[in-house]
Amino acid sequence: MTARRVTYLGVRRLALDTAGAAPPPPGHVRVDVAYTGIGDTDLHIFRGDMDDRVEPPQVIGHEMSGRIAQVGDGAGDWRPGDPVTVMPWVPCRDCPACRVGHTHICHRLVFLGVDAPGSLQNTWTVPAATLVRVPHDLRLDHAALAEPTAVAVHDVRRARVRPGEKALVVGGGPIGLLVAIVARRFGADVLVAEPDPYRRFVAEGLGLSALDPDDGIAEAMARWTDGAGAAVAFEVSGAAAGVTTAAGALATRGRMVQGTGHPAPREVSLHDFFWRELTLLGARLYDRGDFETAVGLIAEDEIPAGPLISRIEPLDRSAQAFAALESGAAVMKVLIDCGADGEAEA
Amino acid sequence: MTARRVTYLGVRRLALDTAGAAPPPPGHVRVDVAYTGIGDTDLHIFRGDMDDRVEPPQVIGHEMSGRIAQVGDGAGDWRPGDPVTVMPWVPCRDCPACRVGHTHICHRLVFLGVDAPGSLQNTWTVPAATLVRVPHDLRLDHAALAEPTAVAVHDVRRARVRPGEKALVVGGGPIGLLVAIVARRFGADVLVAEPDPYRRFVAEGLGLSALDPDDGIAEAMARWTDGAGAAVAFEVSGAAAGVTTAAGALATRGRMVQGTGHPAPREVSLHDFFWRELTLLGARLYDRGDFETAVGLIAEDEIPAGPLISRIEPLDRSAQAFAALESGAAVMKVLIDCGADGEAEA
Repeated sequence: MTARRVTYLGVRRLALDTAGAAPPPPGHVRVDVAYTGIGDTDLHIFRGDMDDRVEPPQVIGHEMSGRIAQVGDGAGDWRPGDPVTVMPWVPCRDCPACRVGHTHICHRLVFLGVDAPGSLQNTWTVPAATLVRVPHDLRLDHAALAEPTAVAVHDVRRARVRPGEKALVVGGGPIGLLVAIVARRFGADVLVAEPDPYRRFVAEGLGLSALDPDDGIAEAMARWTDGAGAAVAFEVSGAAAGVTTAAGALATRGRMVQGTGHPAPREVSLHDFFWRELTLLGARLYDRGDFETAVGLIAEDEIPAGPLISRIEPLDRSAQAFAALESGAAVMKVLIDCGADGEAEA
Repeated sequence: MTARRVTYLGVRRLALDTAGAAPPPPGHVRVDVAYTGIGDTDLHIFRGDMDDRVEPPQVIGHEMSGRIAQVGDGAGDWRPGDPVTVMPWVPCRDCPACRVGHTHICHRLVFLGVDAPGSLQNTWTVPAATLVRVPHDLRLDHAALAEPTAVAVHDVRRARVRPGEKALVVGGGPIGLLVAIVARRFGADVLVAEPDPYRRFVAEGLGLSALDPDDGIAEAMARWTDGAGAAVAFEVSGAAAGVTTAAGALATRGRMVQGTGHPAPREVSLHDFFWRELTLLGARLYDRGDFETAVGLIAEDEIPAGPLISRIEPLDRSAQAFAALESGAAVMKVLIDCGADGEAEA
C-alpha cells in the first residue's frame, strides 16, 4: 500500500511524493481520502507563517471527506467503505482546558495537518476518535466542507444568536459566508461586509445582503437597524479595519465574535466596550456537537456547497491551487481531489 | 430655603456659592445631603476631560447619602427624615437600549452631577424614581459608598463569578478594592494587581492578597492558579498596561470585565482572545438590583467602609480635597460632609 501525498517543504514549496502506508495501529483507522479543501491555515503554512510549529516535510490539509479503508484493532464499529469526515484534532485530556471539558482549546492540542500528518494524500491514518460519520447519500465533495462549516456553527453558537437578531459578518471569504449562512439558518437577519467585489457577488448569489465596508457602513448600519446597531458582529476578516467595523456596528450589549486570529495586537476601543457594555467572544475551532451539526446542515442541503466550491483540482495540481488562492484570484473554496471518490458527480 | 453648593466652573476651578432651593416639583423629592464621595468621574470633570459634556457652572458629585427633606406631589411613600441614597441617573425609556430593559446604558442617559445638578450641595432635588432606601441604623458616611459599591456589584455580576473561581483585580483604587471585596463575598479567590505601594497596603489591611504587576506577575499567576490562569480578570485601572495584565492572566475561556473607560484605543491581543476563547465584557454603572444589593452589603458590614474612607472634609474644603486626590496623595475614598448628617459617628 502506497500513499501519494503533498508535503510542505518550506515557504511556498510543496512536493508530491509517495510513501508506504502501514496498517493502522490499534485504535486507528486508515481512510481513503476523497477530497481535501484548502483553508486559511493551509495558506498560512504555505506562506511560512507557521514555520515555528510545522516541521517539514509535513503532509498538510485537514478539511476532508473520504471512506474507511482499513480498521485497526479496537477502533470501533467502522467498516470499509463507510463515508466519513475527520474532526482533525487530538486533545491531551489532561491540561486545565481539557479538565473542564474544553478539549478543543487544549493547551497541547495536536492538530492534524499542522502538528501531525494531514489529509492532502490519497490515504490517511487517523485515530478512530476523530472520525465523524457522513450519510451514505451525501456527495463527498460537499462533505469536505464539514470542517469549515463546523467553524461557522461554533461561531454562531458562541454568539448565542437568537431568531430575529441582526448580525453583521465582517469578511466574506469561505468562513464568512458559511457563518452568514449558518447564522441565517439559526434565524438571524444577516448582512456581510466585504471589500472584494467578487466575494460580494458570491454572497449575493447565495441570497445574502452584502456591502462594501468602505462605502458608508455607519449610515447603512443605522438604516438597517433603525439606529440601534447590530446585536451580533462576527469578525472573521483578521484585519485591523475589520475589528473597527465589527465593534462600531454593535448595539448596546452587542456581542462581537472574534472568529479568527490576528497576526498583531489590534487597537480596540475598550471605551466603547465599557460604554455600551459590549461583549467580545473569542471562538476557535469547534467541538463534536458543532461538527455533527455541520455534517447535518450539509446533508440537509442547508449549506450551498455547490456555489461555495469554486474548483476541484487533482492532487498533482495542489501547488498550482495554493498559488492561485494566494494570488487572491476570484475563487472561494478550492478542493483537491485526492483520488478516493467513487461517487462525486461534479 | 438656600442651598450651599460646589459648582464646576472650568478646568480645576470649583466655586462654593449659594442658590435658592425651590420646593420639589411633582414626582420629585428634596434631599438634605449628608455626604458626597468624590469619584473618578468627578476627577475627570475637575481636570476638564468632560468639558464637551459638562456645562459650567454645574453642581457636580453623585456618590451620596442623605435624608428626605421635602416630598413633591405624587413622589411616593417618602417622609421627611427617611435616610436615602440616590441612583444618580435618569433614562429616556425610549431608545433601543431602554426598550430592551438596559436603561443604565440608555443612549440619552441623564447622569446627575454630570448632565444635571449633582449632590455636592447641602440640599438636592431629584426625581423620586432615583431614590434608594437606606436602613435607619446604617451610618450615613458608610451609606455614601453605595454608588461605587453598586459599580462593583455590577462588575462582579457581569462576570458571573462562581464560588471558588480565581479572580484577578487589575487596579487597587476604591473601585478595584470594592470589586475585590464583592467578588470575595460572592465566593471568588481574589488577588489584586496594583503598582502603588500605599494601595497595596490598604488592600492587605482588608485581608486581600495584592501584588505589584511589575514584579513577575506571570510567574505569580502561574503559581497561584497551578498553571491554568485566572477564571476572571477585572480591568478597572483604565491603563494600557492593565489591559495586557488582565488578558494575559486569564485561563482558557476566562472572562475579562472592562469596568472602566479608556481615554484612547488600546492594543489588545485579539489572537489571544481567539486562541484561548476569552470573553471581554464591558460593564458600566449598575441597575437598581445592583444598587440595592450594594446598600444591603454595606448595611450587613460586608463592605469595610471605615478603612476605605480615608478622610471626611467639610463642603468649603471641596477644592482642596479635589486637589489632594489629583495629586495622587495616599488616600482612598474622600467624602465631603455636606452638612445634613445628624448621626455620623466618624
